[in-house]
Amino acid sequence: MKKTSRGGELALIETIRRASDARAMGRVRLGIGDDCAILRPPSGHEVLVTTDLCLEGRHFRRDWHTAESAGHRCLARGLSDLGAMGARPLAAFLSLALPAGTDGKWTAGFFRGLRKLADEVAVPLAGGDTAQSPSEHILADIVLIGSAPAGEALRRSTAHAGDLIYVTGRLGGSAAELISLQNGAEPAAKGEHPQLFPVPRLAVGEALLRRRLATACIDISDGLSTDLKHLCEASGLSAEIDLSRLPVHPLAEGRIELALHGGEDYELLFAAKPSLRAGLKMRRSLAGVPVTQIGRFIERGRPLMVQIDSHGSRKRLEAGGWEHTFV
Amino acid sequence: MKKTSRGGELALIETIRRASDARAMGRVRLGIGDDCAILRPPSGHEVLVTTDLCLEGRHFRRDWHTAESAGHRCLARGLSDLGAMGARPLAAFLSLALPAGTDGKWTAGFFRGLRKLADEVAVPLAGGDTAQSPSEHILADIVLIGSAPAGEALRRSTAHAGDLIYVTGRLGGSAAELISLQNGAEPAAKGEHPQLFPVPRLAVGEALLRRRLATACIDISDGLSTDLKHLCEASGLSAEIDLSRLPVHPLAEGRIELALHGGEDYELLFAAKPSLRAGLKMRRSLAGVPVTQIGRFIERGRPLMVQIDSHGSRKRLEAGGWEHTFV
Repeated sequence: MKKTSRGGELALIETIRRASDARAMGRVRLGIGDDCAILRPPSGHEVLVTTDLCLEGRHFRRDWHTAESAGHRCLARGLSDLGAMGARPLAAFLSLALPAGTDGKWTAGFFRGLRKLADEVAVPLAGGDTAQSPSEHILADIVLIGSAPAGEALRRSTAHAGDLIYVTGRLGGSAAELISLQNGAEPAAKGEHPQLFPVPRLAVGEALLRRRLATACIDISDGLSTDLKHLCEASGLSAEIDLSRLPVHPLAEGRIELALHGGEDYELLFAAKPSLRAGLKMRRSLAGVPVTQIGRFIERGRPLMVQIDSHGSRKRLEAGGWEHTFV
Repeated sequence: MKKTSRGGELALIETIRRASDARAMGRVRLGIGDDCAILRPPSGHEVLVTTDLCLEGRHFRRDWHTAESAGHRCLARGLSDLGAMGARPLAAFLSLALPAGTDGKWTAGFFRGLRKLADEVAVPLAGGDTAQSPSEHILADIVLIGSAPAGEALRRSTAHAGDLIYVTGRLGGSAAELISLQNGAEPAAKGEHPQLFPVPRLAVGEALLRRRLATACIDISDGLSTDLKHLCEASGLSAEIDLSRLPVHPLAEGRIELALHGGEDYELLFAAKPSLRAGLKMRRSLAGVPVTQIGRFIERGRPLMVQIDSHGSRKRLEAGGWEHTFV
């Protein structure tokens, strides 16, 4: 116990306060500056909560990810969880611990990246906590609060045998870009950056819920094979995946293992009744995002996954082949 | 990127799942196991959110705090924020990063401490996140979600000139016990442990709100002088504190500076109209907790704090004399 200045922490709180967006505060009755924030969810809605750690050395590296990317990715992780349940975001909360002597430019870049994405999806930063990191690592925990009409949030456990399996966007791009960064490549100035700036599928999730298109949904954070396994186990079903249908990201061309196991794509993986296949929008895109049918759920004694190649050969699909580590 | 086992993380999630309390899940429609948890706040209520970092080396130390204490303190920090606004807790969320090779006994003790307090106040642990810590430090972030009738949550900014200033419980005990621990003392087997096991004042906060007794409220996490300053600045008022009235904790006997600046007492500091003074309960206790009038708010050009000693001498009271550091 000793006398210390809290100047650094107060300055950080001030930065967060500026990053919070007063224009989007309609549902935020009280933001930063009291013991709690106060949110007013829409009438008849339930409240959805997700928290995600974003730790330097685990979830990002300062030599691979720019400060903007670290801020963007932190918020995107939480938003993607809301999207997976079809929820509408209400507010974000950030707990952030910076090492002593962290470059102010890094902090500003982090908040710029976070704020840009927050603005795009109109999510106010309504609070959080700050501390000095006890090590040389930047530590963040992002909390997203959202809402959905009572009883209607999309879940993992509600797929049925016979439902078709869909995925949004393209897979494997995030892992492919990470491998490039690991190999020392400069990020391309143009084009998509699925690793540095993944796009959470909030609008697709909301559309799936509103139009009652999906019977179950999850986001692809750990890789298609791992997250499909979560859907299978939660719903008590097995799944068949047609490898020839997998929408492989251009950055991962020819590397189907990245599309199957790569992780951090933050696309949505969902189940839908076969009767919906005829709908053109469902087959091709939803809320402007490509949607591809990649397989189907089947009944079986014990949940397992099967991959079918272009010749019709069937092989067991194992989950979680690849995991990102940043150490 | 490499192939890794997530066994440790999955085991930790299983521990958290067991620590979550199915009996108290009435307001938790969906707990651990999906992309988000789903909460259903009482009709007509707003939602309150607070997040608090609990970092080893900043907020606790393994050689001073037992594992049970670390778990208890983590949850108590968040609950105290809800209590300060008069909110009723709905659910807690824990993000926890453990260093590789953390003793399983420590983890079990942490959850035992957290769970015991959670049971006492009937707060289910409804989710969170886990990761491996990038350093040798245990990292936790606790999120508490609560609710209060719309527009009625207690705030810092709503005190009036002439309101009396009250505090619950006794002050300085937490700092006094910390100093003992720093000096190598074993925690006493009997008696209160205001540092190791602080008691969040949820019932008092709820009573203040329900009975409309308080005009403003804050919890004492940073020390009376610092948190009183927050109340003064938020309400645009000055304050006079009668030192002779301060309820000094027995552990801090004769050390009034610990009662003024000690921090981590997690008592409530609130303002109330003078017309309430006649009420016996208000003068002596509330929800079974002693309540003491220690001063009054006054109008002044610029918010400042004055301390008045037993001889009537007045002196400027400066905020934040002491801050706990654990490094």
